[in-house]
Amino acid sequence: MTAAARSLTDGIALPTYADVETAAKRIAGVAHRTPALTSRTANERTGANLVFKAENLQRMGAFKFRGAFNAISALSPDQKRAGVVTFSSGNHAQAIALSGKLIGVPTVILMPQDAPAAKVAATRGYGAEVVLFDRYSQDRDALGRELAQSRGLTLIPPYDHPDVIAGQGTATRELIEEAGPLDMLLVPLGGGGLISGALLAAKALNPGCKVYGVEPEAGNDGQQSLRKGEIVRIDVPKTIADGAQTAFLGNYTFPIIRDLVEDIVTVPDAALIAAMRFFAERMKLVVEPTGCLAAAAAFTGAVPVEGKRVGVIISGGNVDLASFARFVGEGA
Amino acid sequence: MTAAARSLTDGIALPTYADVETAAKRIAGVAHRTPALTSRTANERTGANLVFKAENLQRMGAFKFRGAFNAISALSPDQKRAGVVTFSSGNHAQAIALSGKLIGVPTVILMPQDAPAAKVAATRGYGAEVVLFDRYSQDRDALGRELAQSRGLTLIPPYDHPDVIAGQGTATRELIEEAGPLDMLLVPLGGGGLISGALLAAKALNPGCKVYGVEPEAGNDGQQSLRKGEIVRIDVPKTIADGAQTAFLGNYTFPIIRDLVEDIVTVPDAALIAAMRFFAERMKLVVEPTGCLAAAAAFTGAVPVEGKRVGVIISGGNVDLASFARFVGEGA
Repeated sequence: MTAAARSLTDGIALPTYADVETAAKRIAGVAHRTPALTSRTANERTGANLVFKAENLQRMGAFKFRGAFNAISALSPDQKRAGVVTFSSGNHAQAIALSGKLIGVPTVILMPQDAPAAKVAATRGYGAEVVLFDRYSQDRDALGRELAQSRGLTLIPPYDHPDVIAGQGTATRELIEEAGPLDMLLVPLGGGGLISGALLAAKALNPGCKVYGVEPEAGNDGQQSLRKGEIVRIDVPKTIADGAQTAFLGNYTFPIIRDLVEDIVTVPDAALIAAMRFFAERMKLVVEPTGCLAAAAAFTGAVPVEGKRVGVIISGGNVDLASFARFVGEGA
Repeated sequence: MTAAARSLTDGIALPTYADVETAAKRIAGVAHRTPALTSRTANERTGANLVFKAENLQRMGAFKFRGAFNAISALSPDQKRAGVVTFSSGNHAQAIALSGKLIGVPTVILMPQDAPAAKVAATRGYGAEVVLFDRYSQDRDALGRELAQSRGLTLIPPYDHPDVIAGQGTATRELIEEAGPLDMLLVPLGGGGLISGALLAAKALNPGCKVYGVEPEAGNDGQQSLRKGEIVRIDVPKTIADGAQTAFLGNYTFPIIRDLVEDIVTVPDAALIAAMRFFAERMKLVVEPTGCLAAAAAFTGAVPVEGKRVGVIISGGNVDLASFARFVGEGA
C-alpha cells in the first residue's frame, strides 16, 4: 500500500480551495499582499511572459508566514491558550514565532543544537521558547509529539498540515487575482506545502494553468515520488537550497501533488546561484537559494516556458548577508 | 541677483501639479507602479510608521525612468523623429535610452570616457548612441548643447527640466494614493528633480505633509543653497552616493525646493551602508547608496520621525554586484 493510499485510508481530509479562501480572510491585513513583478530582461531571456510573486517581501521574509498564521488562527481558544510547538531550523520557525506573537499564543520551537546562532536569536526575538536538540541522536518528530503531549501544545508541522497548506495557497490566489490567467505556474518544492496550496488555488481559479514543482537536483524525492506513485524517502540532500532539504513529501501534500501537478523538474545549484545574481542585479531583490528554484527552471529551460504566460513564485529571501555577498559577489 | 531670482526673471515657467497628472497619464501602463512597502523592524527601530516607495523596483532600476519617459513623450512628432540627447553616466542615461527605445525615438548619450564599461554597454544595449568625452578637459553641458544644435536633437538634462520634474512627481503621487496622508516625506536629493516633483505632488494631495530633502554629508550644496537663498555650487563631492554627486541645484528645481521644502538634512556615508545592509537583510531589497539617503535620515534621526507617519522614497537599486557584495558582506 502506498503512503498516499494509506493516508486516505486513514481518513485524512485533504484541504480544498474553500480552505484557501478562509485562510485569505484570516491573513487579510496581517500578511503583506506581496507584489507581482515583471522584468523585460527575464522575458527576453526566456521568450516567455513571466510574472514573479515576490514572497521574499512577505513578513519575516518568506511565504511561510501565511500558513503559520492561518494554522494558529484556526485553533480553538483553549488550544491558543495552551500554545503551539513546531520543529524547524528555517523559515517556518520564525513564521510560527511571529504569528504566535501577533495572535498572543505561546510558541515552542524545536531547533537543532547546531542551528545558526542568528536564527536561534531571531526566533527568540519573536518571543518564542527555543528548545535545542541533537539532530544526530534525537528524532525531532518524536520530540515534537512528546512535547505536545506533555505540555498540552498543538503541533504545527512545517508543511504537512491542512491549515498550513491552505495558508500557503493564498500566495497563488493573490497572484492569479493580480496577473490574470496563466498558462503555467512554477513553484519551489520542498515538503510540498507551498505547491499543494498553489495547486488548490490554481485549479479552482485558473483550471487551464499547468503547475510545475521545482526541486534541487540533489534532492529530487518529490520527482521520484511522483514517478513511483508513492512517497519516496531520500537522505537529507546536499544543496544550497536549504528550504528544500526535505527528505520526503507529506501525507497531505503527496496526494494533492500526485493528483494535480503537471510535473516535477529539477535544477542544479549552479542555476540557483545564477538566478540569485539575476534577481539582485536586474530585479533588485535579495532571494534565498530555495527561492530561486522556480525562476531557475524557467531560465534553464527545465520547464519549456517559451511563448507562455508564466507565474513564478519567489518563495523567500532569508539568506544571511555573508553568504549572499559570497554568492552574488563571485565573478562580479 | 540670485540664480533663482534670475531664473524667474528669465521667465522660466515652473511645472505644476497639473503637469504631474499629465505625466501620470503618459507613463500609465509603461512605468511600473512600484510597491509601497512596510517593515515592522524599521518601525520598531524608529518609533515611526514608515512607508517605503520602492523605486529600485522601477524599470531600469530607478525613478529616473518616470521623468525620462514623460519628457520624451511630451515632444512634438518632429522632435521625436530627430531624436534626443542627454549627458549622464548614471541612471538618467539608461532611463533616456530605454524610453527612447520604447517610444521609437533615437537617443544620443554623452558619457565620460572613464564611465564603467558595464554602464556604457547597458546604455548601448538599450539602442542608444553613446558619445564618450573627457570629463577633465571637456564641458559636458556645452558638448550637449553643441550636439543638440548640430544634429537637431532635443536636449533632455537629468533633472533641470519641467517634464523631467513632473515625471518624477508621479512616484509621490502613487505613494500618497496608496498610503494615504503622511506627516512627512523623506526624499533623496541630488540635482533636485525627484524632490521637486515630490513637492508638487505632496503639496497638492497632502498639504500638511512636510517634505525633507536628504543629501550626503560630503555634498550638501542643496542645504547650503537653501540656507543662503541662492544656488550654491560645490566641487564634485566624494561620497558613495554617486547619484547625489551633483554640484548644484537647477534653475527649475531650486525655486521649487526653496519655496516648498521643510528642510534639507545630511547623512554620512556610513549611515548609507548601514541602511543598505538593513534593506538587504530585513526587506530583501537591493538599494544603491543614493537610494538609501532618505531611509538613513530616518534611521539616524537626522529627521525626527518618532510618532509620525512617514513616506520614505527608495530612489534606485543600480549598484554593481561586486560593490554591493562588498558593502553588505563587510562584517556580516
